[in-house]
Amino acid sequence: MEFTIAQVAQLLGGEVKGPADQKVSRLAKIEEGTQGAISFLSNLKYEHYLYTTAASAVIVSKGFEPKKAYTPTLIVVDNAYTAFTRLLEVYHNALSFRKSGIEEPVHRGQDTEIGEGVYLGAFASIGDHCRIGKNVKIYSQVYIGDNVVIGDNTILYSGVKVYDNCRIGANCTLHANAVIGSDGFGFAPQTDGSYKSIPQLGNVVLEDYVSIGANTTIDCATMPEDSTIIREGAKLDNLIQIAHNVEIGRHTVMAAQSGVSGSCKIGDYCMIGGQVGISGHLHLADHTIITAQSGISKSIEKPGTILSGSPAAENRENLKSQVLVRRLPELEKRVRELEKILKELSLPANSIQ
Amino acid sequence: MEFTIAQVAQLLGGEVKGPADQKVSRLAKIEEGTQGAISFLSNLKYEHYLYTTAASAVIVSKGFEPKKAYTPTLIVVDNAYTAFTRLLEVYHNALSFRKSGIEEPVHRGQDTEIGEGVYLGAFASIGDHCRIGKNVKIYSQVYIGDNVVIGDNTILYSGVKVYDNCRIGANCTLHANAVIGSDGFGFAPQTDGSYKSIPQLGNVVLEDYVSIGANTTIDCATMPEDSTIIREGAKLDNLIQIAHNVEIGRHTVMAAQSGVSGSCKIGDYCMIGGQVGISGHLHLADHTIITAQSGISKSIEKPGTILSGSPAAENRENLKSQVLVRRLPELEKRVRELEKILKELSLPANSIQ
Amino acid sequence: MEFTIAQVAQLLGGEVKGPADQKVSRLAKIEEGTQGAISFLSNLKYEHYLYTTAASAVIVSKGFEPKKAYTPTLIVVDNAYTAFTRLLEVYHNALSFRKSGIEEPVHRGQDTEIGEGVYLGAFASIGDHCRIGKNVKIYSQVYIGDNVVIGDNTILYSGVKVYDNCRIGANCTLHANAVIGSDGFGFAPQTDGSYKSIPQLGNVVLEDYVSIGANTTIDCATMPEDSTIIREGAKLDNLIQIAHNVEIGRHTVMAAQSGVSGSCKIGDYCMIGGQVGISGHLHLADHTIITAQSGISKSIEKPGTILSGSPAAENRENLKSQVLVRRLPELEKRVRELEKILKELSLPANSIQ
Repeated sequence: MEFTIAQVAQLLGGEVKGPADQKVSRLAKIEEGTQGAISFLSNLKYEHYLYTTAASAVIVSKGFEPKKAYTPTLIVVDNAYTAFTRLLEVYHNALSFRKSGIEEPVHRGQDTEIGEGVYLGAFASIGDHCRIGKNVKIYSQVYIGDNVVIGDNTILYSGVKVYDNCRIGANCTLHANAVIGSDGFGFAPQTDGSYKSIPQLGNVVLEDYVSIGANTTIDCATMPEDSTIIREGAKLDNLIQIAHNVEIGRHTVMAAQSGVSGSCKIGDYCMIGGQVGISGHLHLADHTIITAQSGISKSIEKPGTILSGSPAAENRENLKSQVLVRRLPELEKRVRELEKILKELSLPANSIQ
Repeated sequence: MEFTIAQVAQLLGGEVKGPADQKVSRLAKIEEGTQGAISFLSNLKYEHYLYTTAASAVIVSKGFEPKKAYTPTLIVVDNAYTAFTRLLEVYHNALSFRKSGIEEPVHRGQDTEIGEGVYLGAFASIGDHCRIGKNVKIYSQVYIGDNVVIGDNTILYSGVKVYDNCRIGANCTLHANAVIGSDGFGFAPQTDGSYKSIPQLGNVVLEDYVSIGANTTIDCATMPEDSTIIREGAKLDNLIQIAHNVEIGRHTVMAAQSGVSGSCKIGDYCMIGGQVGISGHLHLADHTIITAQSGISKSIEKPGTILSGSPAAENRENLKSQVLVRRLPELEKRVRELEKILKELSLPANSIQ
Repeated sequence: MEFTIAQVAQLLGGEVKGPADQKVSRLAKIEEGTQGAISFLSNLKYEHYLYTTAASAVIVSKGFEPKKAYTPTLIVVDNAYTAFTRLLEVYHNALSFRKSGIEEPVHRGQDTEIGEGVYLGAFASIGDHCRIGKNVKIYSQVYIGDNVVIGDNTILYSGVKVYDNCRIGANCTLHANAVIGSDGFGFAPQTDGSYKSIPQLGNVVLEDYVSIGANTTIDCATMPEDSTIIREGAKLDNLIQIAHNVEIGRHTVMAAQSGVSGSCKIGDYCMIGGQVGISGHLHLADHTIITAQSGISKSIEKPGTILSGSPAAENRENLKSQVLVRRLPELEKRVRELEKILKELSLPANSIQ
């Protein structure tokens, strides 16, 4: 992939300052820019690199005024960071969507429809009665059970496993070895103290623009025709556990290794840190923020609540307690001091009586 | 699958109240029941749905007396919930066990015996000298190493990996991408401060009726002829880590993302919450209960102990401490108050002398 | 595999005390030794087994003097444990490296070079423009993307997934279902409160002698030509999350289920316990030690620092606080007692005035 600086500027709707016909073929950080590379300057902490970089072009934001001589051509845009992200995206899509066609052998079940432009990697397996949309990329060794529906442009990286009856929206990304639709952890205690598995017969629904991290697991709902649901635009990082009958709201983001217990309903636009645990049957309001390693054991009704700690409390309360936990040796010493003073003090007090 | 209400009642040993010849083909929650569906009423909180549901049949417990008019046929059983679970199970088994035969290509090593009724999904790989029991379901892309034994009726979902020499009992379920028999984490420190891997040559044994969640990992024992053992009926959820030489007792259940360090011996009938960590070489008595996110660093000798916190203590002690942690700002204020009073008080006291 | 005791002694550079021509074919713990087995005695707690074991040979350390009659032949070496580990290693390598050749079908892309002695398990898939070194073992259902380089003698167990452009050194071991190079968790907030994925275009570099546990995930760097790096000799256990742009130092070991957030730089020779979380953009000095379940939110400059707790503090400080947390009910009682005394005491004090 090689473009002129003028072509890149046109794509970004930017204005060129300097020679526009030079070829660029790579993206690079400004401190690592070499000839043929295009870079960007957003954080002015890095401004000094502009005067030494060998990058051929640098994207800058409107209003930026260089203070010294520099060699790259500048592309002036509204927001340099956003514009550069746009380039990354063009580059990424060019890579992702170059895959197409079928690498035999693959396994395709009966009555399964596969859309135009689909990529099927070697040793992928698709069950019966599936509907696979246009331009879906199914990498090598992906498994798709029976009666599965996948929307257009969705990417399933190598080793993703989708159980029977699940529904995956359009423009989703599922990273390697993610598991969608495994049996929930439901067991009925028996009179002898052992447990019997409760069959799990529901499915998982991922709406559009959902992102699922590598090795993340999402259990199916218990009852037939019920669903564990990940709503539109939600982003789940790696190694996350979503239990049966959970609902994750729209545009909620969850960092790695967090776990949500059965039947929770997490609101829209929530931000959940890494290694967070959420107990079963809770409801969290929209815009709830949970810091890393917190343990949530109560529902949250007020939107925008910030929680931390295990067990969690409102972040400000938790921070106050945590500071005092660190100062407990000092507090204990103060109490000891008081006891000592009081012991001494009580002697003359008693002698008065 | 379509049955008459009479057939369902017969299967459940229940008594029919109402028309018995109607056909039912689906299971549904009572609030979502439509014609052709069979539902159940166990928790009387949902009783009002009985009077509005369009389900064709509703399973109720003996002694239940409707208070209003209703349309479904009733099937009266000893315990409505248990009976419905039985239906779920029948339905689930009908789905799971419908798979059979071999979807070529599969890889089969030398001297490997495969029982009757086995399902081998496409791209499954089985090594040399294995013994696979009757009716075992090996889904697509499962890997089974050499010298592996698998008992009758066990299900290995897509992407499960079983290392050489492991033994898996009958009637087990292993969910997608679970790993059985990976090398334990053993390293011998070298004089230069680096580490050398200690080879791990033992195996993993899963007894009968064991359930292993998606993406859970169970390491093999260190020494040849030693085993990491998961005893009969134990249920492990998703993303759990079981280290080398661990033994998990009979009918113990562990929730998602918990980890057990090397050489631990966990008793029978224990209940371990999500995201729990257990340090190495500990013994936990039978019926130990551990709440979510706890960190266990001491052995437990008394059966039925309930633990919580990190580091964990007996649950009641931990709860008392946790309540006081939340009230630390208040306690600190009380101490400050005492210091103030004592300072004031000590002045006249001194003036007396 | 069968050897004489003399042959084993020669391999270990040890001296034989007793008959040297007997055959040994198995390794066993001294308490489980039977005829034909070779065992070792390192911890003298186990010395009594020497006098009862039926093992054919026992490895002992120089200077050890038996106190009673015993039957096995002794092999005297500098360090019995190290010598036995050496035998385990020989045994392990004999097993691991016996695999060779290609189990068809496999998928090989264009312009991909495969070294001598490589094992390719059934249904493995290797992309275009890859360079696979000598004696590399690629088990069944491994996926290797495009432009991947793998050094000599590296083992990738079944189900490992390596994304495009990653570089894996020589003598590495990657356990089943590990994921190398998945997209980092980077999202740009949009004006409507939703998030847009920031394309991740860098790669992952594993240097030589790196060990990666089962189901562990390592995200690629964000920028093209940037890398997430695991340095030489580092050992990562199962179910670990390494985020984008992280660097893990040489010979650092991390226990299971720990997570490192984006752009962290962990020093050399660090020891990180299980279920530890490390916040983004931190630097940890060499030889940092972190106990299990800790949460690290600050950089550590002093080498050899020991950290514990969540949020973490220096281990000694944290232990002091933790002890006092457990004693909070007692401390609260002491404060209550003081309040009571002071209340009583203040009455006569007031009456004096």
